[in-house]
Amino acid sequence: MNYQAILESIQSDLKDYKNTGKVATYIPELGKVDSSKFGLHLNCINGNHYHLGASQERFSIQSISKVLSLAFALKLERNKLWNRVDVEPSGDPFNSLVQLEYEKGIPRNPFINAGALVVSDMLMSHLKNPKEDFLQYVRDIAGDQSIDYDTSVAASEMQHKYRNAALAHLMKDFKNINNDVDALLDFYFHQCAIAMSCQQLAQAFSIFLNYSKQDQSQQALAVPPMIAKRINALMLTCGFYDESGEFAFRVGLPGKSGVGGGIVALHPKHYSIAVWSPPLNEKGNSELGMKVLELFTSKTEISVF
Amino acid sequence: MNYQAILESIQSDLKDYKNTGKVATYIPELGKVDSSKFGLHLNCINGNHYHLGASQERFSIQSISKVLSLAFALKLERNKLWNRVDVEPSGDPFNSLVQLEYEKGIPRNPFINAGALVVSDMLMSHLKNPKEDFLQYVRDIAGDQSIDYDTSVAASEMQHKYRNAALAHLMKDFKNINNDVDALLDFYFHQCAIAMSCQQLAQAFSIFLNYSKQDQSQQALAVPPMIAKRINALMLTCGFYDESGEFAFRVGLPGKSGVGGGIVALHPKHYSIAVWSPPLNEKGNSELGMKVLELFTSKTEISVF
Amino acid sequence: MNYQAILESIQSDLKDYKNTGKVATYIPELGKVDSSKFGLHLNCINGNHYHLGASQERFSIQSISKVLSLAFALKLERNKLWNRVDVEPSGDPFNSLVQLEYEKGIPRNPFINAGALVVSDMLMSHLKNPKEDFLQYVRDIAGDQSIDYDTSVAASEMQHKYRNAALAHLMKDFKNINNDVDALLDFYFHQCAIAMSCQQLAQAFSIFLNYSKQDQSQQALAVPPMIAKRINALMLTCGFYDESGEFAFRVGLPGKSGVGGGIVALHPKHYSIAVWSPPLNEKGNSELGMKVLELFTSKTEISVF
Amino acid sequence: MNYQAILESIQSDLKDYKNTGKVATYIPELGKVDSSKFGLHLNCINGNHYHLGASQERFSIQSISKVLSLAFALKLERNKLWNRVDVEPSGDPFNSLVQLEYEKGIPRNPFINAGALVVSDMLMSHLKNPKEDFLQYVRDIAGDQSIDYDTSVAASEMQHKYRNAALAHLMKDFKNINNDVDALLDFYFHQCAIAMSCQQLAQAFSIFLNYSKQDQSQQALAVPPMIAKRINALMLTCGFYDESGEFAFRVGLPGKSGVGGGIVALHPKHYSIAVWSPPLNEKGNSELGMKVLELFTSKTEISVF
Repeated sequence: MNYQAILESIQSDLKDYKNTGKVATYIPELGKVDSSKFGLHLNCINGNHYHLGASQERFSIQSISKVLSLAFALKLERNKLWNRVDVEPSGDPFNSLVQLEYEKGIPRNPFINAGALVVSDMLMSHLKNPKEDFLQYVRDIAGDQSIDYDTSVAASEMQHKYRNAALAHLMKDFKNINNDVDALLDFYFHQCAIAMSCQQLAQAFSIFLNYSKQDQSQQALAVPPMIAKRINALMLTCGFYDESGEFAFRVGLPGKSGVGGGIVALHPKHYSIAVWSPPLNEKGNSELGMKVLELFTSKTEISVF
Repeated sequence: MNYQAILESIQSDLKDYKNTGKVATYIPELGKVDSSKFGLHLNCINGNHYHLGASQERFSIQSISKVLSLAFALKLERNKLWNRVDVEPSGDPFNSLVQLEYEKGIPRNPFINAGALVVSDMLMSHLKNPKEDFLQYVRDIAGDQSIDYDTSVAASEMQHKYRNAALAHLMKDFKNINNDVDALLDFYFHQCAIAMSCQQLAQAFSIFLNYSKQDQSQQALAVPPMIAKRINALMLTCGFYDESGEFAFRVGLPGKSGVGGGIVALHPKHYSIAVWSPPLNEKGNSELGMKVLELFTSKTEISVF
Repeated sequence: MNYQAILESIQSDLKDYKNTGKVATYIPELGKVDSSKFGLHLNCINGNHYHLGASQERFSIQSISKVLSLAFALKLERNKLWNRVDVEPSGDPFNSLVQLEYEKGIPRNPFINAGALVVSDMLMSHLKNPKEDFLQYVRDIAGDQSIDYDTSVAASEMQHKYRNAALAHLMKDFKNINNDVDALLDFYFHQCAIAMSCQQLAQAFSIFLNYSKQDQSQQALAVPPMIAKRINALMLTCGFYDESGEFAFRVGLPGKSGVGGGIVALHPKHYSIAVWSPPLNEKGNSELGMKVLELFTSKTEISVF
Repeated sequence: MNYQAILESIQSDLKDYKNTGKVATYIPELGKVDSSKFGLHLNCINGNHYHLGASQERFSIQSISKVLSLAFALKLERNKLWNRVDVEPSGDPFNSLVQLEYEKGIPRNPFINAGALVVSDMLMSHLKNPKEDFLQYVRDIAGDQSIDYDTSVAASEMQHKYRNAALAHLMKDFKNINNDVDALLDFYFHQCAIAMSCQQLAQAFSIFLNYSKQDQSQQALAVPPMIAKRINALMLTCGFYDESGEFAFRVGLPGKSGVGGGIVALHPKHYSIAVWSPPLNEKGNSELGMKVLELFTSKTEISVF
């Protein structure tokens, strides 16, 4: 597969693309980003790398962190987590309380905010220094010790915590949150506020690839296959809130988006790929990012389907 | 891969399995089936076949027909369909009216009843003899001209039509059904009442596999890859009602279940597989069928993830 | 109380009223009415009558009929009805299916469409000639044998039956409808299509007043006090769909509206009053009718509160 | 009316009553009450008083306080309140977040928890010392300066604040709460934790009666008639959560219940009445209290309907 040529052809196809998306502003700090930024990094299972644009520029990974915290939690405690969070698509926006009330405090899946709060709560209960330990985990899987929290973003999120505070309090009422709500929110907002580049994200998500025996030396940090299979399944069914079906339909890869405009996706047998473009469509996913990935799986004729 | 050994080991693992499921009885005709029936047929892309139990015995395919009617509709009209039905998981039971009201008569996806009724309505508008033409399509893709409607099941469904009649009338109120409701229901119930064996189903669903050039002689009826990709994505995200996430999580294949106890699943690069066991779990999917497929993808270590 | 002076003062206050409402058009036949029509009839418990405008002109009573069919059903069968329909405000639009699905086919109250369909179903099971017998009941309580169905309105409703057909089929699925759905809808649409004047409506609703002993000769048809109390309570809590609270808050009387622009209200110790003005507010209630009744209870300083 | 004889006959009718209700335990402090306690106080507009049982024993008034805080808020600011809270029955449990999310942070009415939190927020913005000032208002209208907060109940509620904290944070996210959430909850829980007897409650609620000119000397604190009408209407349509219709249907009076087992009701022209019995039915209203009031309006043949 000539990935370089395919990436260049996508770039060419989209050079006059009219982006109708809007940069997220509900957290003021996020609204400061330059909306024309674009980056892409493709990390192949055989060790090859390809990139476009600002692939090394860091941005706020936001909800993409939910996959990393899930992977970390499943390292620490493999089974009990699934008593506290379900594995079904929600069909609702990422921050809805409606299902949570009907379903008695059990979030639909770990990739909506409520589910990620439960995962964070479990991490807090296991870790001595949750923020430090989580950051170290991310640095290790991304292979870059310079990765860090953007504390101004974390502080901005804390100032606008109310919807997430409502979710956490509702789950605490249903006894599905064990730790102090404000400490939990502080930990959760820090996870969202990690700044990473496309290159770092693609590297980090390579832990979910199915390395064959000869490639395993490359990836000692890879998640055990049975766990990776499940996390990949969850990304495919739940990674894009109430647009998960659309992403599966158009792109056909497990993936996860964040309101910072990043999307990471992967084909378990071939590659992990990260793309970044801040303007979001009305469902909260990077408009251009989805378009690029749709072209990528169409042109390569490779998807999981 | 020694599929024969894997199938035998699954059979051995499950020989004392205590099935807690219940045969569907809401259509009386379906309740007459022997609950201990079991069949499986594996149809590999290279032309090999493997089977267990009553793999040639026919049963009511029920909602499995929704995938076949979608494939047929997309042959006739590729684009307009997606204006009338969405591609998102519903997160609700298969016959719910709630989302349909909130979303103004646009069903969440073509694999819940409301969505399949819209697909059927579109087929009716295109076909001269809907029932005859649809049956011929199924016979052709399954390669067996003896396949037929079980008219006693269709009649039994018509006598208990009320929930589906409510769905159809609600969508007609929203102008998303064009044909007469009773004629539409008659057509829809006939689709559900097709009787097929595991062998025939596995053959029919091979149209969604990604045949390589050298295999294409085997499968002239294969769906174009871009369409197959989308139908497979829909099966993965929406094929098991509000248990779609669970099936993706445990099994990791696109698939579709029916209340007759059948499940068809497929790996686009490897095989299609059909399994039949009538007792259903509380979500309406074959309990043993899901278990068998979970063991199958675990033992083969092959899934789309 | 000088009712004549109060009515005239209301007429004077509202002579330049800018009506922002819209005449109902979802049934084409209803859309033909002159939107400037206005009538009012006040029927006092002591036998005095007062009126304004076109108080003798007949219009389609629509949902106002739901109170009369409930009263008639409670004459025939006092207790079993409440197993099939609840007595709670719905908080939802008049034709919603959402609660009906969640609450397993038991309508919230007899004044939303679903509830009135159950009441009609019960009447059908008791009456030899439902349409003739119901019409006779209305003629008797209104004291006017010339009252009749507007069959062109009934036919128009039958042509646009889909939403109500969805409600009826859903309840039939839950076994809360016993009769044939199309026959039931025909009966129900005829009830809605009765044409009556404000004078006739005020007279008919006088059966819910608390006549003292000396006045009872006037009203042999009065509903027994324990039944009247309950029907009045239902009108107050449920008579105006999801605007029932607003009507109670602003007007403070039991009442019932119809999409033909009519409103009937009553004070059990003093009077029944009917007002008619076709333009409806966005909740489907006569905008001017509500305004007139608000002024009436404010100026008289009499309400049930 | 021989009220004394009627009260005695009710007591006699119910002496062998099997109460199937359960004392509220979700706030541990409330669970300590003796479930067999019973008290009743009837306060007639003409100055007569009647009572049964422990009518002077104080209990936690809980949600009954919502009517008093609304009355106090409407003294301070008559109009703006209705931009922030609606006047419709909710049809949902008292602490539901579902409607609040759909309706963008505007509570359905001031007598569900969310609505009372908005009223409390408005009081906090107007009052220098919210807790002291509110308590003084209650003491004044009840005519008893010994009324006080039960601080152990308030502290117990604060320890189990999570559901109410979720409601408050969700509304703050929708910008319908202005004050600090924890300070607001502290004020709100204190209101709920006022301890009053049936006698004191009946006296306090006499401010909502329609005193005639000759009786006005008795009640200088009476709420202006136009305000009392609206508060009474709200009590009738919304005073018993999702059982408001049932109370209107069976009892036929404006009223308000609390999970401490108290119910206050009133007939604007005749009396206010308070009854106390701790065991609650499944909707959270005093089972015996509702029964007593149903018998009272049946035997007196007086209700607002």
